[in-house]
Amino acid sequence: MIVMLLLGPTEDLEEEEEKKDIQAGPIEGDLGIIGLGPAGLTAALYASRSGVSVIELGLDYGGQMGLAMEIENYPGFEMISGIALADKMKAQAEKFGTKVVYGEVSVIDKIEDGRFHIKSDMGEFIVKALILATGGRHRKLGVPGEEDFVGKGMSYCATCDAAFFKEKTVVVAGSGDAAATGALALSDVGAKRVYWTSRSDYLKCERIYIDRAKDRENITILYNKQISEIKGTNTIEEVLFADNTSLKVDGVFAEIGAIPNVELAVSLGVELEEGLIKVDDDCRTNVAGVFSAGDVTSKIVNPLMRQITTSVGLGTVAALSAIEYLQGLKTKQY
Amino acid sequence: MIVMLLLGPTEDLEEEEEKKDIQAGPIEGDLGIIGLGPAGLTAALYASRSGVSVIELGLDYGGQMGLAMEIENYPGFEMISGIALADKMKAQAEKFGTKVVYGEVSVIDKIEDGRFHIKSDMGEFIVKALILATGGRHRKLGVPGEEDFVGKGMSYCATCDAAFFKEKTVVVAGSGDAAATGALALSDVGAKRVYWTSRSDYLKCERIYIDRAKDRENITILYNKQISEIKGTNTIEEVLFADNTSLKVDGVFAEIGAIPNVELAVSLGVELEEGLIKVDDDCRTNVAGVFSAGDVTSKIVNPLMRQITTSVGLGTVAALSAIEYLQGLKTKQY
Repeated sequence: MIVMLLLGPTEDLEEEEEKKDIQAGPIEGDLGIIGLGPAGLTAALYASRSGVSVIELGLDYGGQMGLAMEIENYPGFEMISGIALADKMKAQAEKFGTKVVYGEVSVIDKIEDGRFHIKSDMGEFIVKALILATGGRHRKLGVPGEEDFVGKGMSYCATCDAAFFKEKTVVVAGSGDAAATGALALSDVGAKRVYWTSRSDYLKCERIYIDRAKDRENITILYNKQISEIKGTNTIEEVLFADNTSLKVDGVFAEIGAIPNVELAVSLGVELEEGLIKVDDDCRTNVAGVFSAGDVTSKIVNPLMRQITTSVGLGTVAALSAIEYLQGLKTKQY
Repeated sequence: MIVMLLLGPTEDLEEEEEKKDIQAGPIEGDLGIIGLGPAGLTAALYASRSGVSVIELGLDYGGQMGLAMEIENYPGFEMISGIALADKMKAQAEKFGTKVVYGEVSVIDKIEDGRFHIKSDMGEFIVKALILATGGRHRKLGVPGEEDFVGKGMSYCATCDAAFFKEKTVVVAGSGDAAATGALALSDVGAKRVYWTSRSDYLKCERIYIDRAKDRENITILYNKQISEIKGTNTIEEVLFADNTSLKVDGVFAEIGAIPNVELAVSLGVELEEGLIKVDDDCRTNVAGVFSAGDVTSKIVNPLMRQITTSVGLGTVAALSAIEYLQGLKTKQY
């Protein structure tokens, strides 16, 4: 059940030769998991613990979770960083034989015998079943200062981080439901002042959220405010807008949408729903042998619910369904 | 937002007087959560962290999770006991103001103003929204020795515990899908021998599972075998059957069903589906203000998928939906 790296003698070879020799042919396994976030790592834990050989591939270690400096809403840890939590999840999966490969997957083909051929910059792999846990990435503001303050006042998830801004002043950028519920969440935890800013002269969220926000004493709605720069020293101190105004703030929440990573799914013929991978209650896609879990799936349409907890739940379901699929392949009759 | 206990001076009072004085009237809060398992504790963490005042009530500390001696499939912990994990989850929720009450809830009534009146042996409570996370309990074999070996070879969850029985000999009792997939899971992890026993002369699981089990060299199917006693010293050593035969084994898996705790839901007029609380994708029930999460819900029909991971996921979803509901109540227009 253990995936063996086909290692050849490399000592006396040129570097180029070495690379070729490290992998004589595609490495075979039962289950390929694409993605190194909580959904993928949980699926790897469940599948390898059940005796399935697992190859897990990805580049973004920890996924969106990996970007979080301080997590205090994953049950069991009062406070932990995303990378530290990913380390624990990864070690746990590896303990049961999961092979983690840090590589970028370029293409996955379904081959004639029903298996899947994965090509990556770290070699090729052939697996009998696939779990796509490719997650998504938050849309960025794309302004100077933004990258510098991630985890130091710059946030893309109000559900995750609002509680850190009690009695603080913040800007919420965005005009959709995520921005609206973000502003309300910040109001609820007792932010001193929430400036909810829209780039245009309207808000595109549900009307009900606007009513609620207007009712809150600590929320101020500002229109035609496009952030042009974020300034500060160690943490955020000021936000500049395109109209040459500015606000003194402690934090900025960009709630302007997410981009699900569905390219590999699409090339495999996996059906989407509202841009997300369409899965049934058991995390099956429309392609036999292909399962999906986490933020990239249609099970989590509401951005508020894109949480580590929901991802570990779906990672479990996808793994159990993949195990069932693999059990079926093992039996002569099938 | 913090729930205050209405404490009066008690020093010079009789015990009976004291009791009365501890609670002058029902304690009020935003959200009542019934159940102390991972779904309820996660919901409490999310809700209280968002600024909602939470009262969480229950008797079975940790729920089904609390019965597990060794958990190694909750991502983040290589090995932890169910009680230790519950302690961590509870402390985390309490940090944000959740008030945990160890009490048995006798009845919940929806009162005229739309709120809910909870009566328990530890006092009365009035809340604006409810999350029912009452879980379920595994059906027991009801034979001598069973209780003595829980966590010492006696298990009710093959998905959770199969990995502990590599190269061991086990009995799986039951004839349904859970027993079938349990036997296969034990075979997959490399159990030395799996005796899959049915009390009657047939198996009521899906035919496909029987085909798969017959295909495995380490599974033996035995009919008309009713367990009558479980024997051992520190751990299980032998199983006796009603037909006076016996088997030397290291473990017993009872996979004979679960009983969801739906009594409170039913009395509130909450609709069921196949005996479980019917919820939509956002964990809402048919009763306004009543949400549900965890094993008691229709989101987890497949017993295999009743895991801590899936419960923390659903606890999150129920909490976020309840927060949304409470935000609506706060606004004048609604």
